[in-house]
Amino acid sequence: MQAGKPILYSYFRSSCSWRVRIALALKGIDYETVPINLIKDGGQQLAIIEYLEETRPTPRLLPQDPKKRASVRMISDLIAGGIQPLQNLSILKQVGEEIQLTWAQNAITSGFNALEQILQSTAGIYCVGDEVTMADLCLVPQVANAERFKVDLTLYPTISSISKRLLVLEAFQVSHPCRQPDTPTELRA
Amino acid sequence: MQAGKPILYSYFRSSCSWRVRIALALKGIDYETVPINLIKDGGQQLAIIEYLEETRPTPRLLPQDPKKRASVRMISDLIAGGIQPLQNLSILKQVGEEIQLTWAQNAITSGFNALEQILQSTAGIYCVGDEVTMADLCLVPQVANAERFKVDLTLYPTISSISKRLLVLEAFQVSHPCRQPDTPTELRA
Repeated sequence: MQAGKPILYSYFRSSCSWRVRIALALKGIDYETVPINLIKDGGQQLAIIEYLEETRPTPRLLPQDPKKRASVRMISDLIAGGIQPLQNLSILKQVGEEIQLTWAQNAITSGFNALEQILQSTAGIYCVGDEVTMADLCLVPQVANAERFKVDLTLYPTISSISKRLLVLEAFQVSHPCRQPDTPTELRA
Repeated sequence: MQAGKPILYSYFRSSCSWRVRIALALKGIDYETVPINLIKDGGQQLAIIEYLEETRPTPRLLPQDPKKRASVRMISDLIAGGIQPLQNLSILKQVGEEIQLTWAQNAITSGFNALEQILQSTAGIYCVGDEVTMADLCLVPQVANAERFKVDLTLYPTISSISKRLLVLEAFQVSHPCRQPDTPTELRA
């Protein structure tokens, strides 16, 4: 099926790219990064993750139980379809400089209000139970965006603590925006 | 697994509800509609469709081949994550009355420009090959939204002709916004 090393067209700061980088790291897939500066945002990267899951099933990013899988996808779609598209660069440009911070904060807080409640019934150590799933791949990059837009995360204790637990895992660290080939020197860590 | 008739919380005009109604009709699942007037938009309804696919696999809404499945999900996410969230009611309210038509048209045309190109390489009779897939469930409601916002569909011949072919199928007709329990009399057909 696979011919040669896969190429990821990636932008260090894009939360959509980061999700996929985490999946690649978790599944131990070696890949080449081609940095691109023009980002086509949207949820499309979930299709890549589902493809990786189907062609490289270990470790699982979706639980075996259909109801738990639905919870994982609901959380992923809430973030990738309900929050991220409303606060991406091209939309913020459209709404104009004066209101873009408020706009982004509104998009994130109204999504996080719903998400915090959902996680209270689905979460274990991570978003759904005690295994890392696709939902976690969506959560961490979105929390990083929330921090960038100065959203008060103390209002979301479940979201924050899951994100913190995930950020110590290797796959989330190697894929972090501060460690990408196209990360500017001043943002490296 | 299933206890009693499933309930769909639905709004006749919502493209997100319509997608799920088509899936339910295709899979021959009897359900109760509970109309709700306040719509929580976003891509969440794709989680319902994936759940239906896993628990009621016939007829398939995702092809067997992983690359074709990825195409189906890419198209679905482009619509459900890249277009619909930008032109839903709550966002249009936020951008204000003067610019909301232009805003919605921009969101749809920039998405359709990408989609028209993708479909030229994936489509057969329908979005991906010759079988109805989840991508088609996303396409038809989005084309209906495009018409509502007066987008010039002659610019998108592939999108238009696939949508027309789908609209004659029974599952797309019974699920149509003009035939729902909460459709106002003046919009019925």
